[in-house]
Amino acid sequence: MFFASDNGGPVHPAIMAALAAANEGDAMAYGDDALTARAIDALRRVFEAPEAEIFLLPSGTAANALALATLAEPFQTIYATPDAHVINHECNAPEFYTGGAKLTPVAADAGKMRPEALSQALDPARFHSEHDGAPGALSLTNLTELGTLYTPGEIATLARIAHGAGLPVHLDGARLANALAATGASPAEMTWKAGIDALSFGATKNGAMGAEAVILFDPARARELAFRRMRAGQLLSKHRYLAAQIIAYLQDGLWLDLARAANARTARLANGLREIGTVEITPAPEGNILFARFPRALHQHLLAAGAEYHVMDGDPTEGAPEDLLTARLVCSWSTTTHSIGQFLQKLRRRPA
Amino acid sequence: MFFASDNGGPVHPAIMAALAAANEGDAMAYGDDALTARAIDALRRVFEAPEAEIFLLPSGTAANALALATLAEPFQTIYATPDAHVINHECNAPEFYTGGAKLTPVAADAGKMRPEALSQALDPARFHSEHDGAPGALSLTNLTELGTLYTPGEIATLARIAHGAGLPVHLDGARLANALAATGASPAEMTWKAGIDALSFGATKNGAMGAEAVILFDPARARELAFRRMRAGQLLSKHRYLAAQIIAYLQDGLWLDLARAANARTARLANGLREIGTVEITPAPEGNILFARFPRALHQHLLAAGAEYHVMDGDPTEGAPEDLLTARLVCSWSTTTHSIGQFLQKLRRRPA
Amino acid sequence: MFFASDNGGPVHPAIMAALAAANEGDAMAYGDDALTARAIDALRRVFEAPEAEIFLLPSGTAANALALATLAEPFQTIYATPDAHVINHECNAPEFYTGGAKLTPVAADAGKMRPEALSQALDPARFHSEHDGAPGALSLTNLTELGTLYTPGEIATLARIAHGAGLPVHLDGARLANALAATGASPAEMTWKAGIDALSFGATKNGAMGAEAVILFDPARARELAFRRMRAGQLLSKHRYLAAQIIAYLQDGLWLDLARAANARTARLANGLREIGTVEITPAPEGNILFARFPRALHQHLLAAGAEYHVMDGDPTEGAPEDLLTARLVCSWSTTTHSIGQFLQKLRRRPA
Amino acid sequence: MFFASDNGGPVHPAIMAALAAANEGDAMAYGDDALTARAIDALRRVFEAPEAEIFLLPSGTAANALALATLAEPFQTIYATPDAHVINHECNAPEFYTGGAKLTPVAADAGKMRPEALSQALDPARFHSEHDGAPGALSLTNLTELGTLYTPGEIATLARIAHGAGLPVHLDGARLANALAATGASPAEMTWKAGIDALSFGATKNGAMGAEAVILFDPARARELAFRRMRAGQLLSKHRYLAAQIIAYLQDGLWLDLARAANARTARLANGLREIGTVEITPAPEGNILFARFPRALHQHLLAAGAEYHVMDGDPTEGAPEDLLTARLVCSWSTTTHSIGQFLQKLRRRPA
Repeated sequence: MFFASDNGGPVHPAIMAALAAANEGDAMAYGDDALTARAIDALRRVFEAPEAEIFLLPSGTAANALALATLAEPFQTIYATPDAHVINHECNAPEFYTGGAKLTPVAADAGKMRPEALSQALDPARFHSEHDGAPGALSLTNLTELGTLYTPGEIATLARIAHGAGLPVHLDGARLANALAATGASPAEMTWKAGIDALSFGATKNGAMGAEAVILFDPARARELAFRRMRAGQLLSKHRYLAAQIIAYLQDGLWLDLARAANARTARLANGLREIGTVEITPAPEGNILFARFPRALHQHLLAAGAEYHVMDGDPTEGAPEDLLTARLVCSWSTTTHSIGQFLQKLRRRPA
Repeated sequence: MFFASDNGGPVHPAIMAALAAANEGDAMAYGDDALTARAIDALRRVFEAPEAEIFLLPSGTAANALALATLAEPFQTIYATPDAHVINHECNAPEFYTGGAKLTPVAADAGKMRPEALSQALDPARFHSEHDGAPGALSLTNLTELGTLYTPGEIATLARIAHGAGLPVHLDGARLANALAATGASPAEMTWKAGIDALSFGATKNGAMGAEAVILFDPARARELAFRRMRAGQLLSKHRYLAAQIIAYLQDGLWLDLARAANARTARLANGLREIGTVEITPAPEGNILFARFPRALHQHLLAAGAEYHVMDGDPTEGAPEDLLTARLVCSWSTTTHSIGQFLQKLRRRPA
Repeated sequence: MFFASDNGGPVHPAIMAALAAANEGDAMAYGDDALTARAIDALRRVFEAPEAEIFLLPSGTAANALALATLAEPFQTIYATPDAHVINHECNAPEFYTGGAKLTPVAADAGKMRPEALSQALDPARFHSEHDGAPGALSLTNLTELGTLYTPGEIATLARIAHGAGLPVHLDGARLANALAATGASPAEMTWKAGIDALSFGATKNGAMGAEAVILFDPARARELAFRRMRAGQLLSKHRYLAAQIIAYLQDGLWLDLARAANARTARLANGLREIGTVEITPAPEGNILFARFPRALHQHLLAAGAEYHVMDGDPTEGAPEDLLTARLVCSWSTTTHSIGQFLQKLRRRPA
Repeated sequence: MFFASDNGGPVHPAIMAALAAANEGDAMAYGDDALTARAIDALRRVFEAPEAEIFLLPSGTAANALALATLAEPFQTIYATPDAHVINHECNAPEFYTGGAKLTPVAADAGKMRPEALSQALDPARFHSEHDGAPGALSLTNLTELGTLYTPGEIATLARIAHGAGLPVHLDGARLANALAATGASPAEMTWKAGIDALSFGATKNGAMGAEAVILFDPARARELAFRRMRAGQLLSKHRYLAAQIIAYLQDGLWLDLARAANARTARLANGLREIGTVEITPAPEGNILFARFPRALHQHLLAAGAEYHVMDGDPTEGAPEDLLTARLVCSWSTTTHSIGQFLQKLRRRPA
C-alpha cells in the first residue's frame, strides 16, 4: 500500500539490464562517450527535434533550475502556478541557479494556470521602471502537481501569451509521460509545437534510477547551459550510465507503456474510492496523482494498517476524528492491483 | 590503453550486484529509507566517527562546493593549491555554491601546499579592513591532483595553521582511498584526527557508478548542509541506489583493495616508463596518477596507436616533433596489466 | 503640485549646512573618521540602544537587502506583505543580497500584515522536509507602503509570532519618522522594545540628500554586515558626508519635526479631498501617503495642469473618462500649502 | 601631512556650490530629472561618444562590479593584474555582482599587465571542456594601483589580445583623470579608441563627494545594467545630487586641473624624497601615488609626528628599526605644498 510517491518504486528491469549491459570496458567521461550520443539521438527522434540541444543529468530539480537559469536573468521574474514544484518544493533552487530571480505565482484552476491571470501578470502597465523588475520566463508543469493536465492547445494558449510579451516558456516534464499517455498527444505536439522552448524531461519517477534531461528546442543558449550544468555539479563523470537509462527508457515506447500503466492504476484506485460514498476526489485525476478527502479517523485506520501516503492539510494523528483531511495518492507503473485492492478494502472496512 | 581518467572504467561487479539487490519493492524517497541509514552507519564506523553527519550525493564537484559553502561565507576567501580541482576544474562551482567566495591559490611543491606559504597567506597583517575580505576556509586534496600525497602529519601541520587562524579545514577526498592505500593510515588518522572538519568522500573514481559523500566531522552545520544539498538538486530522489553503492564499496574493505590495485598498476607503469631512458617522470607518483614527459613524436605515435590520455602542456598534433610534452596517465582498479604492457611496448618501439 | 514621491523634494537647509561644515580638512575614509563616530553615537542615543551596531549607507533598498541578508539564509523564506517594498519595488535586491532567499507574501489588511496569516504561514506543519525550504525572517514596514501604520503593540504581536517560530524581525523604516510622528511612540518603543532585531533607518525621504542606516539591535551579526556592506559597494569612501547628514537630521529632533510637517500636509490634502464629494480616499492616511480614487477625466485634467503623481491602476491617458483610477499622493516636509491649495482648486474646477 | 588616500580630502568648492545650486524645488527621483540628462550629455561630449549609455552611482567598487557583471557570465573568468582593486580590495564584490565569476590574476610589471602573460592566459589550449570554465572579460586599471600608467597604445595592445579571444575590456578609471593629465591623451583616446568597452569613471577621489559612472561605449547591454544597478541598491533616489557633482566636475576641465594638481604635488614629494639619499622610490610614480621604502625607525618618527599614510609590508610599530618598510603616499588636488614640506622636513631631521 505504497502511494507516497512515484519516486518510491524500483527501477524497471529493462533499465537495470541496460545499466548492466553498459558496464563493459572503458569510456570517456563527462558525456564524450558513444552511449551519450545515442541517448541524445534517441531523444531528438522521439521529439522530432533534430536541432535540439540536450543535456542529461541526475536531478529533476536541477533540470528545472538549469533550464530557468538559461531563460531568465537574475533581475527578472519567473511565472508559475502557486502549486508549482519550482515555487513550492525545490528549496529555492530556481532562485539559487538563476542568481536571484523572483518566482511569482499566477492564479490557477485545479493546478492549471489561467490564461487571463497570466495576461494580467504580464500587463506592460505593471512595469514602469527598474524598481518593478521585469518579466523573465513562464514555467508550466504537465502533468500538473495536482494531477490534472494541459492539452497541447491549452499549453499553446499560455505560450502565445508569454511569447507575445517576449518571454520564453519552460515545461517541467517530471511527469510528461503521464500527460502524453493520457492525451495521446505526441511529444512534439505537447512541447515545441505548442510553443515550449525548454523542457525538463523526467525519467526517474517513471522507471529510471535517476536520469533526467534538459532539452533546449532553441539551441541558442546551449553553450551557456553546458557551463551552468558543470558548475552546478550536474555533469556526472560516468555519464554512460545516465545515457543507458535514457536509451532503455525510450526503447520501443517503454516510457509510454509505463506511464499508461501508472495512469490506469490511478484510475482504478479512483474508481474504487468513488464507490465508497464518503470519499471526495478533487480535482478529477487525469494522470497518476489523485487527491482524496476523508475523515481523520479513516486516515488513522489506513496508516495504522501500513498504508504509505502524504496527508496534505493537517496532522492525521491529532485532532477531531471527523475532520476531513486530504490524502495525496500517487501510483507508478510498479503499483500493484493487489496493493490498490488492499487499500480500498481497508477503507471499506472502516471503523463505524 | 585507456589512461585518460579513473572515471573511464566500469563499475565494480560487487557494486553492480548491490544495485540489483537494492531493486526490490518500494522505499521512501530522498534518503528516508533503510539502505541510506545503513550506508551512513557504515561510513561512521569506517571513520570511527559516530557523531559525524553524512550526506550522499552523485557528484564530487558538488561535494566539494557544498562542503565549502557550509564552511566559508560569501565575503571570505578559500585557500587551496594552484592545481586544486576546486580552483582549476570545477568551472566556478565553489564560487557558485558559496555565493561568491574567492578562491586564492597558495604556493605548493609537487601539488602539496607549503606550510609557510599558508602562514603567510593568513598573516593577520594582510587583513586591515573590510576591503581585504577575510579568510574563510582551507581546502586540501589527498591524493593531490599531481599524484603526490600528504601524510597525516603533513595534513595536521597545515590544519593547525588554519585552525590557529580560526579557519575550518576541508579535504577533497576524490582519491582518498588511493592516499590511504599508499600510506597505510586509517581513515580517521588521515581526516578528523589530523584536523579535517569536512570531507568530500569519493567513490566514483574508484569503482562506483556515481556516489560521493560529504562528511561533517563537526555536525554543527549539518542542518544547513541538508538545505543546501536540496536547493542544489543534489538530493537524489531514489536515494537507495546511492546508498547501495556506498555499502558495497565499503564492504570488507573493497574500496581499499581497489585503490591498492590502482596504485600498483600505476607503479608498474612508472617502472616500465623509467626503464625507457628518455621518459621523465615527475613528480614521483605516490598513488594512481603519474605525469610523464617525452617528445611530441612519441605522443603522436601512441595516440595513433589508440592510447587514450591527456596531454597537459600543448597540442600533440602540431609542432616540432622533438618538443617535450607531458602525459597525464591515470590508472584505476580496472586498468589491465595487458593494457600497460601494450602501452610500454608502443613506447619502446618508437619511431627512430 | 508635486506629489510623486517624498524623494522629489530638496535637501533640508540644515542638512546642506552640515555638509558644508563637514567640508574642511582631511578625514580618514570608509568611516574611520570623527563624524561617523558621532553619527553612530547620536543614533544609539535616539534609540536608547548603546549596544546597537550601526552602519551608514546611501541607499534604502540596500539597507533592507543587507539587513535581510544578515538575518536569513539563502535557503530560507522571508515573509512580508504583498505590497512590501522588498517584494514589489526593489528589482530582486533581497534575492540578490541574500544569495537566493525566497520572498513570500503574507496577507495584509490596508498594508498591515494579519497576525493570523503570519501564524498560518509559519505553521510547522508546512515544513516537512528540505523540499519545503525553511522560514528565515519577518520583514515589516512602518509607515506601511499604503500609508497606514502599526502601533508598537501591533508590531510586538507580529514579532512575538515570528520569534516564537525562531525568526528574527526586520523593520523597513524608510518612513519611520512619519510613523513615530503620527503615533507619538519613541524610537525605542517602535523598534527593539517591540521586538525588532534589525532596522533600516531612512533619512533620505525625509530631508537628507542620501543617507540611511542599518541598525542591528542584536550586535551578534555586525561583523558579517560590515563585510557584506563592503562587497556590495555600499561602504562609501568619503563617509563623513553620510555622517554629517545623519547628525543634522537627528539634531534637536529635526527629523520628527519634518515628519510632522509632512504628515500635517497630507492630512490637509486629505481633508480637502474629502470635501470634494466624488473623491474616495482609502485606506485612511495615517502618515504622509494617501490614495485617492476619482475618474480618469479628472486625472487628465490635473496632469495636464502640471500635477505630478503616480496613477496606480491604469493608464490615465487612455480609456473611458468615467473609469475610476487611483492616485498615490505623497507629501514631504517641503510640500507647500500653496501647492496643496492649487491641486485642490484644479480638482474642484473640474470639467463638467 | 595626510597622504593616506585621495579619498581623505574635502569636496572641491565648485562641486559643493553645484550641490547647493541643485537644491531648489522638486525633481523626479531615480534619474528622471533634468540635471541627470545634462550630466550624461556632458560625459558623452567629453568622451566624444554620443551613443554611449551612462549610469551614475555613488560607489567605485559598485561601478567596477556592475560593469564586470554585464560583461562576464557567472561561469567565466575575469582577468586582471595581481594588484588590481577588483581582485584585492573589493571584498569579493565582483564575485558577488557577477553571480560567482572567477577573478584570475595575470602577471604584471610595475602594476601593468604583460601582454604575453595575457596571451598565455587566454591560450585556447587551456580550455578543453566545461571543467576549465571560460574566459569572460579583461579588466585593466589606469592609473594603475601602483601609480604607473598605461599609454593609449599599451591599452590598445592588451585590448587587441582580449578582443581577439572574444573578450570585452573593462577599464577601472577610479583615477582616469590622473592618467589623462599625465599622458595628455584625450578621454576618447584612452578608452574606446583604444578598445575599452566599459569604463568605471571615478570622480570621488578627485574632488567629488561621492559620484561615479559606468560608461558603456557599446550600448548593447545597457538595459541589463539598468536593472542590475537597481537591484544592487546603486540607483540613488535623489539622483540630481549625483548629476550636479558630475556636471561641476567636468565643467571647464575642472577634473583635469585637479588631477594635474594632484600629479604635480606627487612629483614634488617624489623629488623631495629622492634628494634624501636613503629613500628608495619604486616604481617611478607617474600619477598621484608613490611608494617609498625606508627604515622602520623613520616610519615611527613620521607617524609619531602626525603623518598619515599606509605602510604596505609590515607593522611599523614593532620590529627591528633598520628594516625597510614601504610607505604608500597618495596626493590629491587638496594636498598642500606646506604639508609636503613638513613631511620632507620631518624625514630629513630624522633620528641619527
